[in-house]
Amino acid sequence: MSSGTYAQRVNNFSQNKVARKLLETIEQKKTNLCVAVDLTKKRQILEVVEKVGPYVCLIKTHIDIIEDFDQGFIDELCILQARFNFLIFEDRKFADIGNTVKLQYSSGIYKIAEWAHITNAHPIPGDGIIKGLKEVGKPLDRGLLILAEMSSAGSLATGSYTDAAIEMARRHRDFVIGFIAGRKLTGDRLGQQYRSPTDVILKSGSDVIIVGRGIYGEGRDIVKEAKRYQEEGWNAYLERLKLEK
Amino acid sequence: MSSGTYAQRVNNFSQNKVARKLLETIEQKKTNLCVAVDLTKKRQILEVVEKVGPYVCLIKTHIDIIEDFDQGFIDELCILQARFNFLIFEDRKFADIGNTVKLQYSSGIYKIAEWAHITNAHPIPGDGIIKGLKEVGKPLDRGLLILAEMSSAGSLATGSYTDAAIEMARRHRDFVIGFIAGRKLTGDRLGQQYRSPTDVILKSGSDVIIVGRGIYGEGRDIVKEAKRYQEEGWNAYLERLKLEK
Repeated sequence: MSSGTYAQRVNNFSQNKVARKLLETIEQKKTNLCVAVDLTKKRQILEVVEKVGPYVCLIKTHIDIIEDFDQGFIDELCILQARFNFLIFEDRKFADIGNTVKLQYSSGIYKIAEWAHITNAHPIPGDGIIKGLKEVGKPLDRGLLILAEMSSAGSLATGSYTDAAIEMARRHRDFVIGFIAGRKLTGDRLGQQYRSPTDVILKSGSDVIIVGRGIYGEGRDIVKEAKRYQEEGWNAYLERLKLEK
Repeated sequence: MSSGTYAQRVNNFSQNKVARKLLETIEQKKTNLCVAVDLTKKRQILEVVEKVGPYVCLIKTHIDIIEDFDQGFIDELCILQARFNFLIFEDRKFADIGNTVKLQYSSGIYKIAEWAHITNAHPIPGDGIIKGLKEVGKPLDRGLLILAEMSSAGSLATGSYTDAAIEMARRHRDFVIGFIAGRKLTGDRLGQQYRSPTDVILKSGSDVIIVGRGIYGEGRDIVKEAKRYQEEGWNAYLERLKLEK
């Protein structure tokens, strides 16, 4: 349930370290802001991360759009992660059968499981996708988000699809830590882009607000915008707590 | 419609070069066999491709499970492709919004659009995913397969989801060349793994049979197995033609 304080909800995740760590980080840094760094050069990405680091609980990556990716990028990202104490969420949207996602998650050039605390998956292939990812991620204390809805026009993730996604997630509580969804679902989850912090955190009851170019788009003062989103997101959370009383 | 000869159906694809090229290759090499090379070392993969090359119309890759991937691998794969005249199908299962898949398809380390004649996508995000991929792939004469069904247990790609996938594909006939599905749908498509050639080509009316470890699994004679699947698949197609008369 996305109700109660972040601190209180740490206890809901006795089985999952990364969920506890995320909630603790949010509470400690007083930020529910996740910055989506959808840039294609590693230098650009690291610059944004260094600037927003103090104001975020989470950094969201698309590792496979980086043109000059190499292991050095991961090393530098992990140094910033340790310095600013945030978690890393690779927005991979896994969508294949168990045996394939196991390899995609652990192996290849990117070795996502080695550095991403959190990743996400579509429920379409059935439970096998969660089982496959869990085999790799659980021993490393990683966590998975399930895409229960998508905000894009004409999305097929609605109605009974969304219900089935939630049921599937419930069967794997030791690894699935929440949902990506546009409205309030039962369970912890991350919010969506393109909406105001008040809308996402207060009205829709999300735990985390994800912002991309609103922070580092052309002409923006990255630090100023990150601070603003942090404040707005945190105030919306405090408002929500008042309403819950 | 998956009926008529491969050669006759070339005319169904006036808008899409890669679909015509695939059908012509099938007819010319008398093979509807696609080999799924799900291996993690580039040397292993290239060895399999070199052996099965003469017997396939299509090679299916999972580029992101290759541990020692580099540009040299793509170069060697393309040399084999030219030598044996097959097409390359990267089984990426794109599943994000348009702006993201555009980058994932064209950029990053893998630059999939540069070498994969065919790739595939889940319809979940709505039309935007096809539009995004088409912007990149259409100018390069690439083709897209839509995942209308999945054979894995508990798949959510059924019923109205599958119907919506087919409708979505129809709206983009200049780029979508068919479906991945387990049973006969209206439209051209590729078949699925784990079933006999007769089952896939004759009973389910698929155009292509995809085989993986059945050909290069431990202890198998790769050339012998590839020849066997080619023959069985082609005979099943000839049987189907007889039944259609």
